[in-house]
Amino acid sequence: MKVQGKHYRPIWLDADGWRVRIIDQTRLPFAFEVTTLETSEDAARAIRDMLVRGAPLIGVTAAYGMALAMREDPGDAWLAEAHERLMRTRPTAINLRWALDDMRMRLRSLPPAERVDAAYARATEMADEDVEINHLIGRHGLALIEEAARAKEGPVNILTHCNAGWLATCDWGTATSPIYHAHDAGIPVHVWVDETRPRNQGGHLTAWELHNHGVPHTVVVDNAGGHLMQHGDVDLCFVGTDRVTATGDVCNKIGTYLKALAAKDNGVPFYVCLPSPTIDWTVNDGIAEIPIEERAATEVTHVTGLTDNGHLVQARVVSPGSRAANPAFDVTPGRLVSGLVTERGVTTASAAGLLELFPERAA
Amino acid sequence: MKVQGKHYRPIWLDADGWRVRIIDQTRLPFAFEVTTLETSEDAARAIRDMLVRGAPLIGVTAAYGMALAMREDPGDAWLAEAHERLMRTRPTAINLRWALDDMRMRLRSLPPAERVDAAYARATEMADEDVEINHLIGRHGLALIEEAARAKEGPVNILTHCNAGWLATCDWGTATSPIYHAHDAGIPVHVWVDETRPRNQGGHLTAWELHNHGVPHTVVVDNAGGHLMQHGDVDLCFVGTDRVTATGDVCNKIGTYLKALAAKDNGVPFYVCLPSPTIDWTVNDGIAEIPIEERAATEVTHVTGLTDNGHLVQARVVSPGSRAANPAFDVTPGRLVSGLVTERGVTTASAAGLLELFPERAA
Repeated sequence: MKVQGKHYRPIWLDADGWRVRIIDQTRLPFAFEVTTLETSEDAARAIRDMLVRGAPLIGVTAAYGMALAMREDPGDAWLAEAHERLMRTRPTAINLRWALDDMRMRLRSLPPAERVDAAYARATEMADEDVEINHLIGRHGLALIEEAARAKEGPVNILTHCNAGWLATCDWGTATSPIYHAHDAGIPVHVWVDETRPRNQGGHLTAWELHNHGVPHTVVVDNAGGHLMQHGDVDLCFVGTDRVTATGDVCNKIGTYLKALAAKDNGVPFYVCLPSPTIDWTVNDGIAEIPIEERAATEVTHVTGLTDNGHLVQARVVSPGSRAANPAFDVTPGRLVSGLVTERGVTTASAAGLLELFPERAA
Repeated sequence: MKVQGKHYRPIWLDADGWRVRIIDQTRLPFAFEVTTLETSEDAARAIRDMLVRGAPLIGVTAAYGMALAMREDPGDAWLAEAHERLMRTRPTAINLRWALDDMRMRLRSLPPAERVDAAYARATEMADEDVEINHLIGRHGLALIEEAARAKEGPVNILTHCNAGWLATCDWGTATSPIYHAHDAGIPVHVWVDETRPRNQGGHLTAWELHNHGVPHTVVVDNAGGHLMQHGDVDLCFVGTDRVTATGDVCNKIGTYLKALAAKDNGVPFYVCLPSPTIDWTVNDGIAEIPIEERAATEVTHVTGLTDNGHLVQARVVSPGSRAANPAFDVTPGRLVSGLVTERGVTTASAAGLLELFPERAA
């Protein structure tokens, strides 16, 4: 999508054909900086220090990290070592493991002399595949926005939570893809952006994305969405997800469940956008079975912001002496979800709905 | 309640019998400072600049402001002028008008020479009446906590939103009163404190109160409550309110509605604590009829916090270039409320329930 009028992806190959360039997301939204990865260790550091984030983007960065490693030494020992080092950067990231295992399997089967070219080709292919999946999600979601636009005057008001945007993928994003497709097609949209405490991915990243691409939007605190829905100010909700169960339960950033409850109570359609690898076919009961990561309390007690004289500061916002808890995700039961928007189309958030779209998964 | 081991109210008369002392709430939670009001203008400034906040406390501060005014000049002209000046400090505060009108009515009927003593006596009486009402709310709410304690092992987990605490009243608070009563009675309680964006009254004031009184508590972001309820980690919710309709709809700080939805979805009792003057017998449909104040966007875009080297800073936390909206309250329909806890007892949040407790209001 666009930044300052120019098209960007969050990761791309330099004109020299080997160096990898990324948007440094730790600097957003207060500075826009592009960083160059020249070694596999650069790639590992970019993942570990969260210069890149979002499952698909982490996977592709690791794949390029393997390509950089093959330039350093295409032998079997370094191939195994680079795989190991990159895997250690974010141990729980599913896409990271998938991308690294895919690269290792392909490269091991080739003579060392062919590994550099093959690695770059596969990493670029992975990025392009991600973009194509997100484009298809956007096309399917676009139909839902078009339907809402036909039913009313003025812009379609869409609420989103967290950042399931192009910064978390290789382009388009997941939850934002229908929005960008609608905006680019000339359909008037306006986005309510949940701030998304404690890490403020909405107020920081989603707002930054939408502003740069020129999509009208307004940031609200996470508390506001129910009130907006009660007063008819939200036509649709689109959110992303980290994991969907075989029965359509949706694990996503903490607070998603509260918005789904409000949407149900007010008859507002609530859609979850996902690439199909996000479906975990081994899990049936999301609330009982998905372990929820408890992150550092300092993410709640402290915020990062920009002072009026341009300094980035960390400041405590919780009364000193009080402790904080920080569950990072919650599970929205499928019964509260109007539909799952995948690259294959839209389906109900249920075992039957998922098997209709993915019949090859039927036992 | 206690601060650093000593009992405080947020407002009290100095040992000299005429100066008024208040806790400067603009400095909380990062500094505990007591300020002295010596003139009616001091009292007006304390209300206007929010050194005191919360409807009951604002009313009592204004009443003491009238007493200070009578010391300055007990004549009719200054009585009228002081009433006018104090009224202008927070034009929408219901308790402010009630307290000032009550003072003016009583003082006008007395000869000027008797007005100073009468004003101090009435202001102190108003404070004591507020404390007694909150004490009764606490006694009725305590029974609900005792019932929850009998039904389980370990501490009773109570979730609260915003600050309906003793800092907003003359002592005990409303939503916190049952909690303090339970804690003081030796019933083990633990409080989940919603941060309460955008003004962070939970993370700032409720956390500070509970910490100083020694009540176990944990601050969470506003997004977390639904997840906690799904996993059985909340036994009861207690919140305050700014206005309750004749049909039991509850207007309270933005985000209250989302917690009430989650409570309903998970079978967690959701109680609203209020002194009976909070009931607006003229309003029936809270969502349609109660105008919601839209406050400054800077409350969303900027936060106040303490840096590690002890400086209080304001910092922007929303992407520059993005706008924000800030609806300050929402309305929770009575159907989501398990009960209204008043000084007269607990009743259902409905027209019938309210008339049962307040039969004198029946047409």
